[in-house]
Amino acid sequence: MPHHKSSYTARAASFKNPTASRLLKLMDEKQTNLSIAADVTTKAELLKLADVLGPYICVFKTHIDIVTDFDQDLIKQLEALAQKHNFLIFEDRKFADIGNTVKHQYSQGVYHIASWSDITNAHPLPGEGIIKGLKEVGLPLSRGLLLLAEMSSAGSLAKGAYSEEAVRMARRNRDFVIGFIGQRRLSVPLDAGQEQEDDFLYLTPGVSMAQPGDSLGQQYRSPEQVILESECDVIIVGRGIYGAADPVAKATEYREAGWAAYQKRLGVSQ
Amino acid sequence: MPHHKSSYTARAASFKNPTASRLLKLMDEKQTNLSIAADVTTKAELLKLADVLGPYICVFKTHIDIVTDFDQDLIKQLEALAQKHNFLIFEDRKFADIGNTVKHQYSQGVYHIASWSDITNAHPLPGEGIIKGLKEVGLPLSRGLLLLAEMSSAGSLAKGAYSEEAVRMARRNRDFVIGFIGQRRLSVPLDAGQEQEDDFLYLTPGVSMAQPGDSLGQQYRSPEQVILESECDVIIVGRGIYGAADPVAKATEYREAGWAAYQKRLGVSQ
Repeated sequence: MPHHKSSYTARAASFKNPTASRLLKLMDEKQTNLSIAADVTTKAELLKLADVLGPYICVFKTHIDIVTDFDQDLIKQLEALAQKHNFLIFEDRKFADIGNTVKHQYSQGVYHIASWSDITNAHPLPGEGIIKGLKEVGLPLSRGLLLLAEMSSAGSLAKGAYSEEAVRMARRNRDFVIGFIGQRRLSVPLDAGQEQEDDFLYLTPGVSMAQPGDSLGQQYRSPEQVILESECDVIIVGRGIYGAADPVAKATEYREAGWAAYQKRLGVSQ
Repeated sequence: MPHHKSSYTARAASFKNPTASRLLKLMDEKQTNLSIAADVTTKAELLKLADVLGPYICVFKTHIDIVTDFDQDLIKQLEALAQKHNFLIFEDRKFADIGNTVKHQYSQGVYHIASWSDITNAHPLPGEGIIKGLKEVGLPLSRGLLLLAEMSSAGSLAKGAYSEEAVRMARRNRDFVIGFIGQRRLSVPLDAGQEQEDDFLYLTPGVSMAQPGDSLGQQYRSPEQVILESECDVIIVGRGIYGAADPVAKATEYREAGWAAYQKRLGVSQ
């Protein structure tokens, strides 16, 4: 059976990485494949989103480096909210440097990302050294890494052979790389000796039920397109939810749409 | 005459971007095409490097997000040292997200990079929206942007068509994009109506006169290879200088090697 036809929980066992297993199980427990992209610039807004939307999401995605009044207390409070509402934290750092540099960026500096973010992501662009550098820091902490195989922005150069190479790097580092940021489940020729594609998580940004895009090249797709047609696992929604007059109502709408698409994919009648 | 056969000063006039002109002129004035990659993790080390090596360099390259005791006073002191020793600051942020996100990352957060860094850089990977987003912030401040056309790490995916697309994006945004991080001056077919390749600055990391590489995929080349054979403009040296027993002696050595290669390229007898 293809991976995407199995339930999240059933797939959890095939992942050695504990963060991947935890995420898959909590998605079925909470009945949500919704992630919120919390692109806000103040500590108060960020914590409010985490508390108000926490019950409806599986992953809380941050850009910690756009928060102007960041401090260590923000991290403490965010971790408490993750515990309270049972979601994972995903710092969307998009690491994109050589191994020796990302190692420092991930563990040190003001943010100490590795110390609090369950999941982070990286571009495979610099070559496999970026994964090795991050893994030195993240694996002992049981963290998980997503690779950016594709981007949803107009004119993206992450496509074709580039995306295939991302999958090959992931296969070679499955203890740490748990999946991809991408627009569709990728089909890449198997390596010699490989009988079936390894299972990976696919988290998909650029999801909206209304907007066609913004003036800076972002393009949007619906939950159904992403989960059902493109066989991805998690929908990431940003301004479509936190920019709405009633964010909780919107989150509920997206959660239901994402979950219905997942049930349909499994062949569960509703 | 090909651009790289002209002096830095002669080339300054063809750049509309004031940061590019300033950099080219100060390189001839200070007789240096050396940039230091200050990959240190404390405020004290960073400021010491800027003060001690300032007289020998044209560009001071930072990874501000690996400095564990970062504070606003660090920026104030760094700006004062840039003034004292006449060098430009280049925050090697490697932006790699969609336009709307990088706009915030560049201007806001704890670092406010745009407010103090003369030059920053970005991956063209997400498409042209990344340049537009950064430009909205940087152009009014007269900042300059470098695109990463190639990387020096093993297995880099920034090559071939990817690098060519970086050049085309740069041509379309020459008011803000002043050049590239790359391993060699790129030769890309001219656009319709274009008579000569636009002049761009090429800054080259991964330069060392001794080391063959590290265990995380970094590969090294000599100043002569970079300036003379590959026709780049600025050599970026990291651990080869600041990791030496006598950093000033090493910086002098690299500065002389880089400058001699430039003089040879111009056909100046010594």
